[in-house]
Amino acid sequence: MVKLVWQKGLQFLVQDGRNHTIVVDTEKEFGGLDEGFRPMDLLLVSLAGCMGMDIVGILKKKGGKIDTFEIVVNGERAPDHPRRYTKISIAFKCEGDYKREDLLRSFELSRDKYCSVVATLKDAPKLEFVI
Amino acid sequence: MVKLVWQKGLQFLVQDGRNHTIVVDTEKEFGGLDEGFRPMDLLLVSLAGCMGMDIVGILKKKGGKIDTFEIVVNGERAPDHPRRYTKISIAFKCEGDYKREDLLRSFELSRDKYCSVVATLKDAPKLEFVI
Repeated sequence: MVKLVWQKGLQFLVQDGRNHTIVVDTEKEFGGLDEGFRPMDLLLVSLAGCMGMDIVGILKKKGGKIDTFEIVVNGERAPDHPRRYTKISIAFKCEGDYKREDLLRSFELSRDKYCSVVATLKDAPKLEFVI
Repeated sequence: MVKLVWQKGLQFLVQDGRNHTIVVDTEKEFGGLDEGFRPMDLLLVSLAGCMGMDIVGILKKKGGKIDTFEIVVNGERAPDHPRRYTKISIAFKCEGDYKREDLLRSFELSRDKYCSVVATLKDAPKLEFVI
């Protein structure tokens, strides 16, 4: 469960069910105050965070030692409304003491078997609204 | 563009391209430190934040005055891996001085025309990986 409470402009204060809060906002040119992540950026964070956790977790279980692990994500959007993402590119960079094949296998297991966000993007959930 | 840098456990520090940072993490039972939003919760935030901004923005343009606006989002997940969301329920609650029909029209415009996250969920983007 997450709860979003409108603050001002187009800004929302967001709480999850475990006492964390973040601010979502948008650019000033669109009426925001630019004080937090944009919703479309959070979709990229959701995807990359889910895969990143899978890969780090599996690679460690395989005995890998990770010094640094970074993910850069970019989304390409359609030019016209609703400007959906047409393509999302995710680049992983892992440094440490591990076998290359273990990293690749960890990635494949995330992409094909474990990542809940990849699976949700591939097979859209039913959306139910109450207003 | 968003960048995620692994910190410890399964925790990542995330930066967008506009100087905001958030932490993503997961429950301790799954190897996390529980110090930030979970990736699957951020997917709900992304969806609700996008629609919320649309609705607040459009309703205001129609002359509505909003006192409070809250969104509660819940996701139902499949029992087996990859545990995708099978259903997402979003409840909007708006109080203020506005016409009910304007609120409903603002919601419909978001759902059907403007919300980039709804559109991305309905028509999945191509995913491209570099590892």
